[in-house]
Amino acid sequence: MKSPSNRPESHPLTVAVVGATGLIGQMMLTLLTEREFPVGELRPLAASAGDRSVSFAGRQWPVREATPEAFEGVDIALFSAGGGPSKLLAPEAAKRGALVIDNSSTWRQDPGVPLVVVDVNSEDAANHEGIIANPNCSTMQLVPLLKALRDSVGLERVIVDTYQSVSGTGGKAVKELETQIKAYAAGQPLEHAVYPHQIAFNALPEIDVFRDDGYTKEEWKLLVESRKILHLPELPLSATCVRVPVVASHSEAVHVETTRPIDPATARELFAREPGVIVVDDPATHAYPLATDAADRDEVFVGRIRQDTSLPGGRGLAFWVVSDNRRKGAATNAVQIAELVLRRGWLAPASQRLARAS
Amino acid sequence: MKSPSNRPESHPLTVAVVGATGLIGQMMLTLLTEREFPVGELRPLAASAGDRSVSFAGRQWPVREATPEAFEGVDIALFSAGGGPSKLLAPEAAKRGALVIDNSSTWRQDPGVPLVVVDVNSEDAANHEGIIANPNCSTMQLVPLLKALRDSVGLERVIVDTYQSVSGTGGKAVKELETQIKAYAAGQPLEHAVYPHQIAFNALPEIDVFRDDGYTKEEWKLLVESRKILHLPELPLSATCVRVPVVASHSEAVHVETTRPIDPATARELFAREPGVIVVDDPATHAYPLATDAADRDEVFVGRIRQDTSLPGGRGLAFWVVSDNRRKGAATNAVQIAELVLRRGWLAPASQRLARAS
Repeated sequence: MKSPSNRPESHPLTVAVVGATGLIGQMMLTLLTEREFPVGELRPLAASAGDRSVSFAGRQWPVREATPEAFEGVDIALFSAGGGPSKLLAPEAAKRGALVIDNSSTWRQDPGVPLVVVDVNSEDAANHEGIIANPNCSTMQLVPLLKALRDSVGLERVIVDTYQSVSGTGGKAVKELETQIKAYAAGQPLEHAVYPHQIAFNALPEIDVFRDDGYTKEEWKLLVESRKILHLPELPLSATCVRVPVVASHSEAVHVETTRPIDPATARELFAREPGVIVVDDPATHAYPLATDAADRDEVFVGRIRQDTSLPGGRGLAFWVVSDNRRKGAATNAVQIAELVLRRGWLAPASQRLARAS
Repeated sequence: MKSPSNRPESHPLTVAVVGATGLIGQMMLTLLTEREFPVGELRPLAASAGDRSVSFAGRQWPVREATPEAFEGVDIALFSAGGGPSKLLAPEAAKRGALVIDNSSTWRQDPGVPLVVVDVNSEDAANHEGIIANPNCSTMQLVPLLKALRDSVGLERVIVDTYQSVSGTGGKAVKELETQIKAYAAGQPLEHAVYPHQIAFNALPEIDVFRDDGYTKEEWKLLVESRKILHLPELPLSATCVRVPVVASHSEAVHVETTRPIDPATARELFAREPGVIVVDDPATHAYPLATDAADRDEVFVGRIRQDTSLPGGRGLAFWVVSDNRRKGAATNAVQIAELVLRRGWLAPASQRLARAS
């Protein structure tokens, strides 16, 4: 599928990272290095430049203030600075010819913006007009498995309950958990500021803001993002999203009702065939996906695959999915999108490519 | 319903506690004190007596070896020493005239043994023949809510994913988590022996042993115990049971499909009417049940009550249930069963009471 003749992008690129000093911004720099992305110039941007710099490719790059002008000459802009900067600056970056890959929720439901998980709906990326949205972490690790089931036996209904790590909230939350842990070890009182309650030794059923229907926005995102990515606009899905005292990796307990029967052995084969998915499923040796094992890995791990015995006729599965929310759940998929558009010659907006071709 | 004429039990009783030095045994002693249970003589028993004693009612009681003879003269025997002692000694205690209230899983599925959650299926206790089983902690906190829905709108299917504390495993597991936390705070390696993997900063989808169908015994217990307690032998229920780094209280994300429609406001009213259930459900003030808040409380807390939007016609709810697994999940319900049989004149086996009455 490669078309080398149509790859002006093979020369080194100018890559902006908005929110370059944040937890996910830093992970993006790590991923660009690990995956040998062709970065010629790095342009680290932040809401306020201060007197900071970031380390990348063996040198320091000064952080610049994220202004519209800062995107002049940028080929690809990776955004991970929250909704505000994305809303304001992504169109400015796109206007100046950059392809924006945005990790905030701002553009995900915009009908003109593809929401892409690489290897799940890669083709959608072709239709971008300057902005491609990166899904939410809890959605990201779920959809490769739902895709496999959609394609083989059909999806009727999905229930997912999450066990989400504090790094999903950002560096301040990681610090808050660590501070509480150390206070506990020292016999001192546990204080909190990032979360509304103590997170150490607790399970908080609140991630992102509450909606009028009683679901949180995180739970709603799992619904609407899965629907958009899977091209199943009516897919019934209900989630409870819970923060647990884990530093890295989200875990999810999933119960899927399928249209046609499927047995666990078949599901294991299907899941193992999905790119980026690793099946870890040997109860006899206590082998199943774990947050601690998935940390610093780019794959999605699935195990505890069994028939959902609450459904008749073998039309359902239960399983357990774990992935590093900082990597596949955020930075890895963002860089994979960048790789995808380069490889396929989709760096320019679809309308420009179409005009060029005709 | 009280029949004072038939209450030989109103005088102080001889109460044996098997496993009196364990985490739940100790909690049982606390509960007997807090609830002013009429204990005349306490008989603390353990697999090996050693040179130990337990503190109760202002004095020390020497621990005796749990032998069949140790139950002579005992009125009520609270068992919490694991499956082995319960299997061997509960019939011996019953033979000697004691009413056994057993916290192990040994007798729960025996058709001749009532499995009782007080205020859910109290009447079942009347049918005992010397042994009454106390359900598993994760079942205990779920069934009061399922009962309310069964009685009002009917139950079609239940999905429950748990966030279970280490105290459910026992004192050694609490110690293991604390040791790991302190090692982390000191920058030292984390070691494990009780659990097959590190529990700090992790979520382990393995509680109790694995069955051939891929479910754990803990997940299977949730199914078969809920069915027996609710008198719904065909109730479809699927669970994923997960251990999280929480010291006390189990949390559960529950998704219930109902026969007839029900809205969240109605459910809140129904739940609040159940004895021992407290509704905590005000998202605007971040108020929902929490493990840390439920610890050392005897009630079941429910919140995050919302329509399950993955089901049509309002025929489903999602909610979040939390309770202290050491209390309502184990010791509290055991002592409540003891109170129930005293209050209702059910201390003697049903067949003896029937013979006496005729």
